[in-house]
Amino acid sequence: MLFTKTLFTRLQLQGKLKQSITLNTIKFNHIIISKAMVHNKVTIIGSGPAAHTAAIYLGRAEIPPTMYEGMMANGIAPGGQLTTTTEIENFPGFPEGLMGGELMDRMKEQSVKFGNNIITETVSKVDLSSKPFKLWTEFNEDEEPITTDALIISTGASAKRLHLPGEETYWQQGISACAVCDGAVPIFRNKPLAVIGGGDSACEEAQFLTKYGSKVYLVVRKDYLRASTIMQRRVEKNDKIEILYNTVPLEAKGDGKFLTSLLSNNVKENKQFDLPINGLFYAIGHKPATEIVKGQIDMDETGYIKTVPGTSLTSVPGVFAAGDVQDSKYRQAITSAGSGCMAALDAEKFLTELYD
Amino acid sequence: MLFTKTLFTRLQLQGKLKQSITLNTIKFNHIIISKAMVHNKVTIIGSGPAAHTAAIYLGRAEIPPTMYEGMMANGIAPGGQLTTTTEIENFPGFPEGLMGGELMDRMKEQSVKFGNNIITETVSKVDLSSKPFKLWTEFNEDEEPITTDALIISTGASAKRLHLPGEETYWQQGISACAVCDGAVPIFRNKPLAVIGGGDSACEEAQFLTKYGSKVYLVVRKDYLRASTIMQRRVEKNDKIEILYNTVPLEAKGDGKFLTSLLSNNVKENKQFDLPINGLFYAIGHKPATEIVKGQIDMDETGYIKTVPGTSLTSVPGVFAAGDVQDSKYRQAITSAGSGCMAALDAEKFLTELYD
Repeated sequence: MLFTKTLFTRLQLQGKLKQSITLNTIKFNHIIISKAMVHNKVTIIGSGPAAHTAAIYLGRAEIPPTMYEGMMANGIAPGGQLTTTTEIENFPGFPEGLMGGELMDRMKEQSVKFGNNIITETVSKVDLSSKPFKLWTEFNEDEEPITTDALIISTGASAKRLHLPGEETYWQQGISACAVCDGAVPIFRNKPLAVIGGGDSACEEAQFLTKYGSKVYLVVRKDYLRASTIMQRRVEKNDKIEILYNTVPLEAKGDGKFLTSLLSNNVKENKQFDLPINGLFYAIGHKPATEIVKGQIDMDETGYIKTVPGTSLTSVPGVFAAGDVQDSKYRQAITSAGSGCMAALDAEKFLTELYD
Repeated sequence: MLFTKTLFTRLQLQGKLKQSITLNTIKFNHIIISKAMVHNKVTIIGSGPAAHTAAIYLGRAEIPPTMYEGMMANGIAPGGQLTTTTEIENFPGFPEGLMGGELMDRMKEQSVKFGNNIITETVSKVDLSSKPFKLWTEFNEDEEPITTDALIISTGASAKRLHLPGEETYWQQGISACAVCDGAVPIFRNKPLAVIGGGDSACEEAQFLTKYGSKVYLVVRKDYLRASTIMQRRVEKNDKIEILYNTVPLEAKGDGKFLTSLLSNNVKENKQFDLPINGLFYAIGHKPATEIVKGQIDMDETGYIKTVPGTSLTSVPGVFAAGDVQDSKYRQAITSAGSGCMAALDAEKFLTELYD
C-alpha cells in the first residue's frame, strides 16, 4: 500500500491507524512516499453477531481487533443476514423483540465502545500459507498485504438462487433473494408475488410479503413443507398465502423491463403452467461465504468451514471460524454470537501463547 | 402425588396444569382422592441463560416446556450465577451494559411470554433408566414421579469452598462465596476483607469489594495471578487491593459470633501469620451441579456432563445438556445462551421423531 505522508496523517487523524504500522520512507523525485505495512494482532472478517461478539470480547481483553465488515460483501450490508430480517423474537434478553438491524446496531455500538476498529472494505484475498497471515481488500489487491497474527472468519452465508432462464434479466426488476429488503418496493404493491422454498425462512418471507402483495404463492418443490410446525400453521392460516406443492420453477418471464410471470411445472401431474406474478423471492437456503479461503482451510462438501466441534479452531492454527460460515445446523443469531465469543477466547489464548 | 379435587381445581385455576395430567380417581372413605400423574413433553432443569434460551425456542416451536427453576438450588437464586454478578458488559446487544439480575429478569419475561411453565421447586432425583424419564422434586420424593419425554439439564455450576476449620461457624457470619450478593452487608463496611483466588472472578470480586471494605487482600496460593491481563492490571492499579502471593489459608478465626481473622501460611517463607479481616470471600472456581444424574449419564472426571461436541446431546438419547453444567471452558452468559438454543433445537428434533 502506498501512502503519501498527507494520506498517512489524515488516516492518523481519523483514528484509522490503530493497527501497528511500519513506515518505510522512500524518497522519490523529492517527494517523500511512505510505504505502510499494516499489521494486526487479530483481524475479524465479517460483521454479524459472531463478528461483533468476538470484537466485544477481544476489546475487553485489551486486544481490540480490526474488523473488515465488507462493502456489501456477498450482497449483504454490514450487520449480516440479520439486517435482512424483520423482528427478532428469540434473541434472549429482548422480551419485546427488536428489529434485526437494531440488534446489529447495538452490537456494533458495543464492540466499538471496546475499541473495535471497523473498516468498511471487503477482504477479497487471503494467504494462510505462512505466518503472519496476509490479507488484501478489493482496493489493495495489487499492493502490500495487511498482515495479521490471528484471523477470525465470520463471513456468514448468503441466499441461494436457482439461476433460471430470465433470472439475470429480471434480477432486482421483480426478482430478489430478500423479501424484507425489497418487499416494500412500489412494484410489488398489491401485486401477486411468489416465494420459492418450503422451509422456515420461506414461510416467514411469504407471511411478511402479504403486507405488500395482493396474494403470495409459496412455491414448494416437494409435496410437503419442511418448515417447523408453528410456521406451517401460520402460512396455512393466512388467507393471502396459497401453497403450490410439487411445483418446479422453469423460467422467469417478463415484459422486457419487469417480471410478469413464472413458468412452472407441476411435477405430479407433469403439467406446465404460467403463474402470473410481479415479484419472485428466493428462500431456498444459503451458501457459506468461504470463497476467499477455498483450498487453504478444511471445509465440508458444501463449503462450510470445519471447526473442531465445540470450539472455533480450524485446520489452520491461528485461524478461527465463528457463526454461520461454520454452522449449517443451528444458524441462529444467539448460537452465532456464542460461537463469536468462543473464537475471541480461542484467539486470545492463541495470541497469549504466541507472545509468551 | 396425591391431589384432592380442590387442590387440583386450584392448580388448574392457577394455570399450573399446562402439563398433560392423567387422573386416577380413587374413592376412599367417601372422599374422592385424585392421583395426578404429571407428564411433560419436555422439561428443563435450571434457570440461567441456557435454560431460558431453550425455553424461548421451545415455546416458539409450540412445545412450551416445564421449567424447574429450583428453590435456591445449589445455594443460588433462580436466574443462576448471573444473579450473583454485577454489571455485564459483554452480553452482545447491550452497549450500555446491564445488571446480571436484570438480564435474567428479561430472559425470564421472554420465556414466559412464549409459554414457559416455571415451577419454583428443586428437582432432587431423576431416573433416566427408562422412558419416559422420571423426576421428583424435593417435595414429592416419596410420591409419584413427574414424567417427561425429553429432558434439558442446565443446572449450571456453583462456587467452590475450601471448608477450612472454622468455616462452618462463620459461614454467612463473615464468610461468603458471593461478593456481589453479600458485599454490601453492614458487617463488611469499612472493614478489611479478603478474597481467595487468583482468577478473573477473584480479581473482579476484589475490585467490587473495595466499594465497601477499607482494604481488600487478594489471597493467592501461587506466585502469580492466572487472571487475564486486563484484570491483573485493574487489581494492581487499585490502591485498596493488596495481593498476597504464595499464601495458603489455614483457619477461619473469630470471636464466636463473627469472623475476625484468617490464619494463613506463606508457603515460600513457610511462615504463618494471622490476617485480620472481617470478611472472607471465595472465588476459587466452580462445581457443576450434576449430583442428581451421577452414574446415569456420562461425565468427565470433574463432574461436567459430556456432550457430543458442538451439540447438546448427552450419552442418554432424549437428555440434553446446556450451559455451564457441560462447559468448563468458555463459561460465558452468551455461550451458555447459545448452547440453550442448541438444546431446544436438538430436543425439538428428538420429539418430532418420537411422535412421528
